[in-house]
Amino acid sequence: MAEQDYVHMPSLEEYSKRFERFFKFKRSDDGILEVRMHTLDSHVRWSYQMHHALSELWTTIGHDTGNELLIFTATGEKWINEVDASSFQDVEQSDDDDQRFNVQIYDTLKVVENFINDIEIPTITAINGRGIHWEMAMMSDITLCTPDFILQDDHFMMQHVPGDGMTLALQNILGIKRGNYMSYLNQGIDAETCLRLGAVNEIVERDEIVERAWEIARTIMKTPRSTRRLTHHVAARPWRELVEQNLRQHVYAEMYSFNLVKSTHEFDKVEYKDDKMADM
Amino acid sequence: MAEQDYVHMPSLEEYSKRFERFFKFKRSDDGILEVRMHTLDSHVRWSYQMHHALSELWTTIGHDTGNELLIFTATGEKWINEVDASSFQDVEQSDDDDQRFNVQIYDTLKVVENFINDIEIPTITAINGRGIHWEMAMMSDITLCTPDFILQDDHFMMQHVPGDGMTLALQNILGIKRGNYMSYLNQGIDAETCLRLGAVNEIVERDEIVERAWEIARTIMKTPRSTRRLTHHVAARPWRELVEQNLRQHVYAEMYSFNLVKSTHEFDKVEYKDDKMADM
Amino acid sequence: MAEQDYVHMPSLEEYSKRFERFFKFKRSDDGILEVRMHTLDSHVRWSYQMHHALSELWTTIGHDTGNELLIFTATGEKWINEVDASSFQDVEQSDDDDQRFNVQIYDTLKVVENFINDIEIPTITAINGRGIHWEMAMMSDITLCTPDFILQDDHFMMQHVPGDGMTLALQNILGIKRGNYMSYLNQGIDAETCLRLGAVNEIVERDEIVERAWEIARTIMKTPRSTRRLTHHVAARPWRELVEQNLRQHVYAEMYSFNLVKSTHEFDKVEYKDDKMADM
Amino acid sequence: MAEQDYVHMPSLEEYSKRFERFFKFKRSDDGILEVRMHTLDSHVRWSYQMHHALSELWTTIGHDTGNELLIFTATGEKWINEVDASSFQDVEQSDDDDQRFNVQIYDTLKVVENFINDIEIPTITAINGRGIHWEMAMMSDITLCTPDFILQDDHFMMQHVPGDGMTLALQNILGIKRGNYMSYLNQGIDAETCLRLGAVNEIVERDEIVERAWEIARTIMKTPRSTRRLTHHVAARPWRELVEQNLRQHVYAEMYSFNLVKSTHEFDKVEYKDDKMADM
Amino acid sequence: MAEQDYVHMPSLEEYSKRFERFFKFKRSDDGILEVRMHTLDSHVRWSYQMHHALSELWTTIGHDTGNELLIFTATGEKWINEVDASSFQDVEQSDDDDQRFNVQIYDTLKVVENFINDIEIPTITAINGRGIHWEMAMMSDITLCTPDFILQDDHFMMQHVPGDGMTLALQNILGIKRGNYMSYLNQGIDAETCLRLGAVNEIVERDEIVERAWEIARTIMKTPRSTRRLTHHVAARPWRELVEQNLRQHVYAEMYSFNLVKSTHEFDKVEYKDDKMADM
Amino acid sequence: MAEQDYVHMPSLEEYSKRFERFFKFKRSDDGILEVRMHTLDSHVRWSYQMHHALSELWTTIGHDTGNELLIFTATGEKWINEVDASSFQDVEQSDDDDQRFNVQIYDTLKVVENFINDIEIPTITAINGRGIHWEMAMMSDITLCTPDFILQDDHFMMQHVPGDGMTLALQNILGIKRGNYMSYLNQGIDAETCLRLGAVNEIVERDEIVERAWEIARTIMKTPRSTRRLTHHVAARPWRELVEQNLRQHVYAEMYSFNLVKSTHEFDKVEYKDDKMADM
Repeated sequence: MAEQDYVHMPSLEEYSKRFERFFKFKRSDDGILEVRMHTLDSHVRWSYQMHHALSELWTTIGHDTGNELLIFTATGEKWINEVDASSFQDVEQSDDDDQRFNVQIYDTLKVVENFINDIEIPTITAINGRGIHWEMAMMSDITLCTPDFILQDDHFMMQHVPGDGMTLALQNILGIKRGNYMSYLNQGIDAETCLRLGAVNEIVERDEIVERAWEIARTIMKTPRSTRRLTHHVAARPWRELVEQNLRQHVYAEMYSFNLVKSTHEFDKVEYKDDKMADM
Repeated sequence: MAEQDYVHMPSLEEYSKRFERFFKFKRSDDGILEVRMHTLDSHVRWSYQMHHALSELWTTIGHDTGNELLIFTATGEKWINEVDASSFQDVEQSDDDDQRFNVQIYDTLKVVENFINDIEIPTITAINGRGIHWEMAMMSDITLCTPDFILQDDHFMMQHVPGDGMTLALQNILGIKRGNYMSYLNQGIDAETCLRLGAVNEIVERDEIVERAWEIARTIMKTPRSTRRLTHHVAARPWRELVEQNLRQHVYAEMYSFNLVKSTHEFDKVEYKDDKMADM
Repeated sequence: MAEQDYVHMPSLEEYSKRFERFFKFKRSDDGILEVRMHTLDSHVRWSYQMHHALSELWTTIGHDTGNELLIFTATGEKWINEVDASSFQDVEQSDDDDQRFNVQIYDTLKVVENFINDIEIPTITAINGRGIHWEMAMMSDITLCTPDFILQDDHFMMQHVPGDGMTLALQNILGIKRGNYMSYLNQGIDAETCLRLGAVNEIVERDEIVERAWEIARTIMKTPRSTRRLTHHVAARPWRELVEQNLRQHVYAEMYSFNLVKSTHEFDKVEYKDDKMADM
Repeated sequence: MAEQDYVHMPSLEEYSKRFERFFKFKRSDDGILEVRMHTLDSHVRWSYQMHHALSELWTTIGHDTGNELLIFTATGEKWINEVDASSFQDVEQSDDDDQRFNVQIYDTLKVVENFINDIEIPTITAINGRGIHWEMAMMSDITLCTPDFILQDDHFMMQHVPGDGMTLALQNILGIKRGNYMSYLNQGIDAETCLRLGAVNEIVERDEIVERAWEIARTIMKTPRSTRRLTHHVAARPWRELVEQNLRQHVYAEMYSFNLVKSTHEFDKVEYKDDKMADM
Repeated sequence: MAEQDYVHMPSLEEYSKRFERFFKFKRSDDGILEVRMHTLDSHVRWSYQMHHALSELWTTIGHDTGNELLIFTATGEKWINEVDASSFQDVEQSDDDDQRFNVQIYDTLKVVENFINDIEIPTITAINGRGIHWEMAMMSDITLCTPDFILQDDHFMMQHVPGDGMTLALQNILGIKRGNYMSYLNQGIDAETCLRLGAVNEIVERDEIVERAWEIARTIMKTPRSTRRLTHHVAARPWRELVEQNLRQHVYAEMYSFNLVKSTHEFDKVEYKDDKMADM
Repeated sequence: MAEQDYVHMPSLEEYSKRFERFFKFKRSDDGILEVRMHTLDSHVRWSYQMHHALSELWTTIGHDTGNELLIFTATGEKWINEVDASSFQDVEQSDDDDQRFNVQIYDTLKVVENFINDIEIPTITAINGRGIHWEMAMMSDITLCTPDFILQDDHFMMQHVPGDGMTLALQNILGIKRGNYMSYLNQGIDAETCLRLGAVNEIVERDEIVERAWEIARTIMKTPRSTRRLTHHVAARPWRELVEQNLRQHVYAEMYSFNLVKSTHEFDKVEYKDDKMADM
């Protein structure tokens, strides 16, 4: 018998506690892990804290080999669509450049890179409503959305370079030209168009979407563990390559410009107006 | 005059004989080569022997500079859709690991790589019905199919990693997300959907599909030889890059898992049920 | 203060004069530059001279940091759809191989590479009618076309390898299989199909298309300069990679074959017949 | 002020405790972190437990933004050069295929990928003697070694495919041909040759090597934090690309063959004989 | 005869005049162009103006198809080794963010990209002494240097991310590990070491170095024009790929950090001390 | 038992006969295959026939799974260093453009691509003297040479673009700058320099070199078959990528120029003079 035990790995119980202010966890006996974003058990309020928590989440659940399949969703009728403006002001009005670097470069890279590099199991995202930061949903193996979902990258309209991975996802899911057009003009496409163009795999009513994710998960779980995991490797390979080749140049560009123009986050500007819907 | 003759190259007559149990050949005076898969002049029965014969076929016809354009099809009402189960049992019940390596790694790589690397002429595949191993059809320059064709990768449902090139093709023809979804859930799309999404170029009735391939071939043959051949180079370049960058990792992953879970080929599980049709 | 002034850069006034026989320029106070191709203020007549002028144009306007956004269009009811046959005969009937190299290799590379490498601002192309050499339109960030536009690469039908960037664009905008099929069979798709498949972003009537481009341009100009420019970097990154990895092998292949088969440019063969429309 | 605190991050004190059986930690006030591998405070005894602990180590210290520079070394007169054979027997004699997958695929990927993907600060490795698994040393930004170090990949001699990253490192540090030759013939090169060929940056006596690493570290720390961190990004970019493009196919290949030939780890076969030194 | 003349291209006489404050030109009848950097006909004084002039130079001479081979050198006993500090202060003390963007992003990209993308003829650089910004020398096809040349990237020591192409060149010419070590520790290597490691091709005394470049040039000119030019394409292909894949992320990273830490250019800090010489 | 036998594969006896005018074969019981180039059992006389035979050889021995390791060498005191001038004249004085295409494009690609793509076993080349076309030797896993070997690419001096794979090999084995310099100036490096720079692995006297190759082969054969073969996959992966990404653009460029300048092969110009030896 080995001379040493393995290093202690955080148990689901332990990390459920650690992340409790950001995520609710539910895991079946065979390892299907449902993670639900929340703020005070209601709609997510976006903040640098949630941004950072997500990047830590991917790593934590990815390193727990007891997790066999990830279902990711959010609370209530929205995806990520409310904001804690004070969180952004804390950083943007501070003189602490180390903190600025941490949120601008480190966290912005890691929220995507950790999802791609640390999660080595099949992933299903159930987008439960409108919102931003759907790049992790798009980079999931399987993506469900509710009928009211709008796919839209509002960086450019908010005066930011669209460098955080959303436009990278659009270019590769919808095609270079559609992605660029939507990004420049802040146009969105609705759930039906997403389905037709291959951005999402199924449209499901809100009260059924998480159960549908579980149904798919249970089907996938009928296959052996090594098959499931290596099939995820095959499924995620295009994203691993795209992220490695592109994300850093995009993030650096966004943050260079953000600072040069002394930008701030003004999320109240985000909107999904009818005249912002692309005809695709 | 050169001091030595060129090394003897197998003539069409010679290799027609060599491959006669697997393929029927027909060649026009100007070099259009039609190859039809068969077993006893009827529907193809899939086996490690046919798998190997295909990889040899690509090399043999690719090296014959008298071939100017390839039309590839199968016999009767099916593509590759019957099985010689005994062929798989021979290997899977044997202790001969060299044979196992040859069919798992060598032949699985070569059936795709030889098609991509050895065929340097325009390729037209006429898929004459349902079946598996359509990756060579998808990687052809032009693809026709009959109205009853279903595009579906059943590896995952059969407990295998979808690593032999079919899911690689799906990801690149239909988009990352559609390909992954179909692969995990064993969902197929019908011929009309294939046409709409760009997976096939034309739908043609079964009794006309080979003649339509010849019609296209004759049109292509009106262009000079170097133009035709280098246009194929341009057409196949994306596949050469994708195969070089991805296929080996996919095949090794599939076979690692196949052996770890002590898998066997149980082709009778394959099915094309209505509830397996994706809504795309 | 610096010991030396910057090197003199050609002003808009200067290069408007230099290019006056090929392009008309109009620039707004905030730097939106409209460039309109013309020949004698009417439809463009394609020639090696226009080919070369375009490659020089991209560099000249790209190097002028006073230009903030490019709108590119042509004159009248056609894109590039008439020909000065004498221009091609001059080269093709000449013994001057240096000139042949300059137009075949240098200019053919540069008309695409300079567009991709030298233009570092948002680009909108308004395709005002039928014609060839739409590769720069397709590689623009945003593409508008008139209802009568046909997307078609006629190289193969004219006995040339489709190596100048158009088929490269088709493979990446429409998918590998659609692009190859259109190229081999000289099939086109109409404006509506282009819109549906994501090849163009909007269809606009001819008398409104340039004004629509200006309207989009003015929207984009509301965003800060560094954001606009780095967003273009993000938008054009896939093209920079594709062009770097592919264009030279395609162009060399085209020109090798062109010379081997003693080809000439016979533009009167180009046609947009109804039976040349792909059903996609 | 933000509505939520950041999620709790493990402190150095906490993870020093967690990893205490594998690593000793020392951190200066300005964030230079020294990590020393050990077993019972003496020479490292290699095991699947240490293998796993390393992959967790990279992630843990990489996620702590209080770490500014990593110095990595081992205890006593050896790098990783003793073995806990029982650890490998536990897995290799077990029927638990999930455990086999975890150590063969997951841990083997992660010990390299986590080093490359999770460590975002300058890295200095002080190789304190002979041993295996120097791939993380070679992929560090700066590498010091003692005069008795031998660079050698013994996979092939031990009947394994050299797929875990060491031969990948050799091919890229020493050149394709030198790396392959060393790998096939189990030849090593000594410290002087490593220095001459650019595999290590300095040779330092054993009792001075860690202090020399600290000296370099203190020099690097004179530069601002964002400069140091982004310089590491530049330094590690070639490794990120190489690992993304190659590691998975190499690891799968190694483990496919390991299982096919029913291999076991027999580390007592490893040797550094004089006739195993390459003349380079 | 063609209906239109080619657009006017600046003649050598014209651009000699345009660039006269930065470069001296000499061209042989067969097209060997010697360009010598200077300031007031003496040692180059580095400035944003010279930086910009170089990027324009590459484009201007690259577009003149009358140039057949480039010899590039500087004046007197130094490469680029004196500074016009006021030039940097103008920008760094100004509030004009457009100017800041132009010099930080546009010019820093273009001084390398235009060299790689616009020069399509064989290139020989004769480095006539110590200095910075030797990346264009290293990316030349053939590189000569004087015995007192030191290869050193001082970005990191000056608190900047080494993102402008010099460390990219070091990593690829000297190997990843040597390049990173030199960059972090501001170590240089002398001419002899450069020759031994393959960074330069010949060491030539200062008063003979330009004539030696001409001698090589005349040898190269004995080969036909298309051969010379396409051989340059082959020679420069690795640089085209490296620059396309890496430069933008490096430059953005450098400039992000430059602004974040409110850096300035303090060139008087640069030094080539004996203790800064790497032992390689 | 399977319903069909495998397709007949040419036996060693059969292909020994087929290739007897070009190669002598010897195979050990465990599958070490020695192939020796010859012409009339003496020094190789280079010709389009030998060129073509080599490309066929790689495929033939690669497809025979009875071959386990390749030793490749030539006859007498020379590698490929005599010429059958009449062979080249046959093609160059002929009007048959199909034949011209076959030798210029098809065979030139395939002599390299078939070596890289078809040989899936460890490869050892024993270069037995001076000569050209050493690219397959350089792309072997292990390379031995005699003390009189000179590594030199004479394409440019012979007025050809160095596009057939030799300069590609030089750039990657010796570094970009050394490879380009040698290629432009037709400089060679001797065996000792090859060894020091990593281009060859061992220098062995001519009468011992083949036996040394067998000795290495027998060492490699002690390892299991799947390990040996997958280790070759790892060893050859960098070449597969380099060839896929570069060879076609290089070959097309060479042949475009060859035809444009109406070049011919004048092998009597090749020389290895003392003043052609690079000082590296």
